[in-house]
Amino acid sequence: MADICKRSDDYSRWYQDVIAQAELAEASPVRGCMVIRPNGYAIWESMQRQLDDRFKELGHVNAYFPLLIPKSFLAKEAEHVEGFAKECAIVTHTRLRSVVKDGKPSVEPDPASKLEEELIIRPTSETVIWNQYRKWIMSYRDLPILINQWANVMRWEMRTRLFLRTTEFLWQEGHTAHATAAEALEETLQMLECYRWFAEDIMAMPVIVGKKTERERFAGAQETFSIEAMMQDNKALQAGTSHDLGQNFAKAFDVKFQNAEGSQDYVWASSWGVSTRLIGGLIMCHSDDKGLVLPPKVAQRKVVIVPIWRKDEEKEMVVAKAAELRDMLKPVAGLVHIDDRDKMRPGWKYGEWERKGIPIRIELGPRDIAEDVCVLATRHDGEKITVPLAELTQAVEANLERIQSDLFAAALERRTKNTHKLDTWDEFTQLYKNEGGFAYCHHCGDRDCEESIQNETKVTIRNIPLTAEAEEGTCIKCGKPSHKRVLFAQSY
Amino acid sequence: MADICKRSDDYSRWYQDVIAQAELAEASPVRGCMVIRPNGYAIWESMQRQLDDRFKELGHVNAYFPLLIPKSFLAKEAEHVEGFAKECAIVTHTRLRSVVKDGKPSVEPDPASKLEEELIIRPTSETVIWNQYRKWIMSYRDLPILINQWANVMRWEMRTRLFLRTTEFLWQEGHTAHATAAEALEETLQMLECYRWFAEDIMAMPVIVGKKTERERFAGAQETFSIEAMMQDNKALQAGTSHDLGQNFAKAFDVKFQNAEGSQDYVWASSWGVSTRLIGGLIMCHSDDKGLVLPPKVAQRKVVIVPIWRKDEEKEMVVAKAAELRDMLKPVAGLVHIDDRDKMRPGWKYGEWERKGIPIRIELGPRDIAEDVCVLATRHDGEKITVPLAELTQAVEANLERIQSDLFAAALERRTKNTHKLDTWDEFTQLYKNEGGFAYCHHCGDRDCEESIQNETKVTIRNIPLTAEAEEGTCIKCGKPSHKRVLFAQSY
Repeated sequence: MADICKRSDDYSRWYQDVIAQAELAEASPVRGCMVIRPNGYAIWESMQRQLDDRFKELGHVNAYFPLLIPKSFLAKEAEHVEGFAKECAIVTHTRLRSVVKDGKPSVEPDPASKLEEELIIRPTSETVIWNQYRKWIMSYRDLPILINQWANVMRWEMRTRLFLRTTEFLWQEGHTAHATAAEALEETLQMLECYRWFAEDIMAMPVIVGKKTERERFAGAQETFSIEAMMQDNKALQAGTSHDLGQNFAKAFDVKFQNAEGSQDYVWASSWGVSTRLIGGLIMCHSDDKGLVLPPKVAQRKVVIVPIWRKDEEKEMVVAKAAELRDMLKPVAGLVHIDDRDKMRPGWKYGEWERKGIPIRIELGPRDIAEDVCVLATRHDGEKITVPLAELTQAVEANLERIQSDLFAAALERRTKNTHKLDTWDEFTQLYKNEGGFAYCHHCGDRDCEESIQNETKVTIRNIPLTAEAEEGTCIKCGKPSHKRVLFAQSY
Repeated sequence: MADICKRSDDYSRWYQDVIAQAELAEASPVRGCMVIRPNGYAIWESMQRQLDDRFKELGHVNAYFPLLIPKSFLAKEAEHVEGFAKECAIVTHTRLRSVVKDGKPSVEPDPASKLEEELIIRPTSETVIWNQYRKWIMSYRDLPILINQWANVMRWEMRTRLFLRTTEFLWQEGHTAHATAAEALEETLQMLECYRWFAEDIMAMPVIVGKKTERERFAGAQETFSIEAMMQDNKALQAGTSHDLGQNFAKAFDVKFQNAEGSQDYVWASSWGVSTRLIGGLIMCHSDDKGLVLPPKVAQRKVVIVPIWRKDEEKEMVVAKAAELRDMLKPVAGLVHIDDRDKMRPGWKYGEWERKGIPIRIELGPRDIAEDVCVLATRHDGEKITVPLAELTQAVEANLERIQSDLFAAALERRTKNTHKLDTWDEFTQLYKNEGGFAYCHHCGDRDCEESIQNETKVTIRNIPLTAEAEEGTCIKCGKPSHKRVLFAQSY
């Protein structure tokens, strides 16, 4: 129990151990599909609620489109099918029939139920949504359409890892339609900023905001933008993407509108999404060798109270006092859990809540109550302070804020420490042979050059930061001229 | 526009028209799958939020299990596979390849990507969940497990109808595990009561709560309970079910636990669900020939303000006043919409909000403002009253309550009027040849007799009401002895 591998020993094993010990998720019998356990799903619910509220503040509404997509739809956008054809779940039959196989009763697809056209489980919904938008959009008065969908999607990945890359995952996908190119781009960038806000202000995970290179663009997009976070092994995680789709899908699905001047034009589009991958990022950004660390703004349970008693007759009193504190803390901490399990030592309980990442633990024994104090322990730094009960609400509120900003500051400091400006290929290869990290380097912009860097070093251009300043230089790999630095890293 | 067929002319057409005019949902290119449009999804979100809050109050947590189920899992529970094998979507391949077909480029499943074991898109998740519970449950200390999942499921229905019966639908499925048969039954009945509360108190839709006959039981359940509502065409809609699964799934998936006495026993289970079908019930229960009628507790937008102006210079003033009222009403009505669209007559706007079922419309013109009043119109009964602005908050609050109770009272009155106690087969066949309705009749309890009634009249036993009193009688069909009356109706 509580056997978590050290990050420094085996980072990948540590990640799995943290997930297992916090009971966040586990593998399922279907290859690459995960079971999100209640503790993991609570994180997703918290993320969902906060993102959804923000999307709605920005004028979006939710809708739901079908899970299955006719295969011919995928094929309508040439790059799109290219991007998704090799990793999709294909439905071919709609009925099972009983058979005897190797002498045992079994079931198999009934050949008589074979579909005329195969259906694909959505890897993303641009095609099925734009097919519908054709019916909804006649004139500029019908625009913009600002729709988001919370859904499961499926990509038949070969190498999977809980949360970070799974065959099925949960996500939100926004799909907007606009009358002008400028509006579509504005929406694309607005949602990118929304993701930056969510990553940094809610998840306490600093990100680099930028534009993807052509090679890393979403299949069917005109431009793809991303937020990239640094994990504790110095690799990058693409945590969210926002795409300016131009008129590509409108053309593929023949979606035209009458503009204010009375002429016909194709509609402009954006799409944007974040997924349960964010939970993987959250874990890898903040957790430590004792287990999960959750930023208060993401934690559904921010505080746990552990009442301590030796004799049975003390139990009632300390648990009653704990209930008082729980009610008192509700306005600043929401639902506070009281761990009053019998026959379990407090130390064991502490360990469990540490593994599960609850930001604040309150310890409360008979002697504390006699002195009108309690002990407040913060998960992320292991600090313990004694707090007068009369000041507990304030102390909890202040500590929740402190934890949130400590976590962001620590992640930012780590990133800064592991970010480099490099100018020679030798430095570059040395960095990625050793500790790795983020490297800002000049690059010529050539797709083949980019590919050769990846083939040699497994390093890719994560994005071209929006804040990148004009600077003359030469490509880190081929020496051709370059006008700004881009962000390199190995990535998940 | 606004062309809604009368209920009395063609009920089924009326239903489709209401959905189309309120922009709730529409058919998709995949047979039987629907697109839930933003107005329809807003209803689902409102239902989801309220059910989810209640589930959590009752101690449940949410989780997420995989969409795909190995076909061998379905086959483990004999009745279960029998119930679902004939209507399921089967995934057989995981890659598309490019081909030329009839001279045109196309894609087809790549034979090299054929799965060793076919996967089924979940029609319900008992099997995949109980396979996981086997790993989670060792001892009575691990029980109860009270998990709910919000998900999409798929049943390849032959005859579909928006919301009421679709190939893919959204639902919640609760799956609980218990140490005793009594606890599992208690949970089953508790959730049944939760559904009754939701149908009656939130949806304003009266329901009959009862136990299904063996013939209508969920595939794999020991007992199935349901809530049944009467629609405006006098047919019944099964609006929610709760199943006592006994030890059936624990046995099929070998889930044993050590009880407090130290011996091994199979775990006891319940499952329960409601789906987007509820939206169909909501529409059919309250809507009228002018379109959708929504109970305030379900409506995301409870109030719309239509400012009225003749000259452009008046617009700014009335819209500003409308914004004041909107802010004032927020505490009692939530987000209030102001319809300030230009170049559209107020009457046209009224019609649109009537079709969309907004419970209260406030009309506000320059003369109203001069007199410090506005007009408050209630959708369900078409009443219009003039209200001093100073009393508007109270008036809105009181009317929202009145609408909610009026709708329930009207639905109950309709049900009472169309419910009969029948004692002869002649009365029975006459009723269902003519207006139909609910009929409380004696039945012998024999499965074949039940089937013959359905074959002759399309009428089924909806349930055996929990409140049914002991009463001696003879079966309405075969004349054998019976000890209580059961509920008969034609159903969706």
